[in-house]
Amino acid sequence: MIPWNRVTIIGTGLIGGSLGLALKKAGLARTIVGVGHRQTSLDEALARGAADEITLDVAAGVRRSDLVVLATPVGSFTEVLTRAKPALAAGAIVIDVGSTKGEVVAEIESLIPKEVIFVPCHPIAGSEQRGVASAREDLFRGATCVVTPTDRTSVAALDRVVATWEALGMKVRILSPEGHDRTLAEVSHLPHVAAAALVRVIGIDAESFVGPGWGDTTRIASGDAVLWRDILMSNAEQIAAAVERLQGVLAAFRVALQQKDAGRIESLLAEAKARRDKLIKR
Amino acid sequence: MIPWNRVTIIGTGLIGGSLGLALKKAGLARTIVGVGHRQTSLDEALARGAADEITLDVAAGVRRSDLVVLATPVGSFTEVLTRAKPALAAGAIVIDVGSTKGEVVAEIESLIPKEVIFVPCHPIAGSEQRGVASAREDLFRGATCVVTPTDRTSVAALDRVVATWEALGMKVRILSPEGHDRTLAEVSHLPHVAAAALVRVIGIDAESFVGPGWGDTTRIASGDAVLWRDILMSNAEQIAAAVERLQGVLAAFRVALQQKDAGRIESLLAEAKARRDKLIKR
Repeated sequence: MIPWNRVTIIGTGLIGGSLGLALKKAGLARTIVGVGHRQTSLDEALARGAADEITLDVAAGVRRSDLVVLATPVGSFTEVLTRAKPALAAGAIVIDVGSTKGEVVAEIESLIPKEVIFVPCHPIAGSEQRGVASAREDLFRGATCVVTPTDRTSVAALDRVVATWEALGMKVRILSPEGHDRTLAEVSHLPHVAAAALVRVIGIDAESFVGPGWGDTTRIASGDAVLWRDILMSNAEQIAAAVERLQGVLAAFRVALQQKDAGRIESLLAEAKARRDKLIKR
Repeated sequence: MIPWNRVTIIGTGLIGGSLGLALKKAGLARTIVGVGHRQTSLDEALARGAADEITLDVAAGVRRSDLVVLATPVGSFTEVLTRAKPALAAGAIVIDVGSTKGEVVAEIESLIPKEVIFVPCHPIAGSEQRGVASAREDLFRGATCVVTPTDRTSVAALDRVVATWEALGMKVRILSPEGHDRTLAEVSHLPHVAAAALVRVIGIDAESFVGPGWGDTTRIASGDAVLWRDILMSNAEQIAAAVERLQGVLAAFRVALQQKDAGRIESLLAEAKARRDKLIKR
């Protein structure tokens, strides 16, 4: 594919930094501009080769770029885009890498000028670590990227963005923003809420008995609270609905336990085991 | 400590087999008798050195032993003990290694002859794998063993059993059977139910999006369904109560999500993170 001429990555953390490294390595960008709000992080991105130029000024950073990547936490997209807006080039493509879509996409689209094309993206990769120090050029290889075009996304822009992710080794899946959010609520956001809830449930007396099983089940609850607050807030309705479905399944377990219904308990467990074993094998 | 003269291990699987290996290695048993219901498993236990003698006959296996270990699944203790009962030597000590205590202890105690002493035990080790092939002489080293004496447990028998577990490298904690079950419901049984429930919640469309976080959170749901049915059944009341507490915490998350209360969501997540980080560090 024809490389991008000038790519601006706003937010040179784990995802933004890895994207810079991957685009350079694949020869998909002539110049990469890193934009951030901390000089030390930008200096590190430059030193690691994740950006060719760096700036603290969002408007200056996006000027003349044909691809602008929003790689800051989802909670800051509005602020970042408001500052970028006056400087965006006509015909530029804007993508985000946010982990929720419905509300975020609507919000970004309301700010995007008519002559700029927005292609919402969620590369599902490396959510646990943070910072450019953890960035890797192969972070995206083999992982899935969900792209959620809207009515205003042109086919040409969609194709070019999809081709870019595929060139970095990603499997691309097209979903509606709402389909994406329901799916991610089920496989990512709800497990996070459940893990945090499990941590809260144990009593003081039980603290010294936590073992490897508990550690696995609650691991994601050690994720950054502010980052996850933003993710949960931006997908609150879908997650609340998923929590309600989880409460329903837990109610079925609780009834089976109260009634000491061994057959029902076994079938609930056996179905979950069979399904998980099948999903993990893929 | 003075070694046991003759130790009978009923159920030479992962726990029973590892106990045989560990007792031999530590010189804590002159003769170990392995009892099982499949000749091939017994032959393997003998070949691995986890037992010196083997038999399919429970009564013949326990005769003349000063320590009898119930290491079959908790659901079969009544049947096993009914067969062993007529042959138990006066003064013998019986221990179990079951992962629940309240009901199991009451059940065993109702079957134990007056001249035999029962010391309920739960070595918290190696619940995921099964079979003597996975047995290891160091399975217990560094792990915790909960001992839950009853009114009928003599101090001398308790001391000797505690000393045995400690000689195998275990940290011993004394709890009431009910305290044990509440604790294990919180740190082990409830996470299992929650993991199985999380697997059931995801829709067909979401199946291809499961990632490492989902894999960690649901890992224990791949445990053996029959084994876990027995564990859940034998601690049903405490687990049902723990499920209810989990539902309460999930309700708090759901309300915060529905109200889009960012501060409340952050504090729920931050408290869980801080607590988990503290517990895991120990």
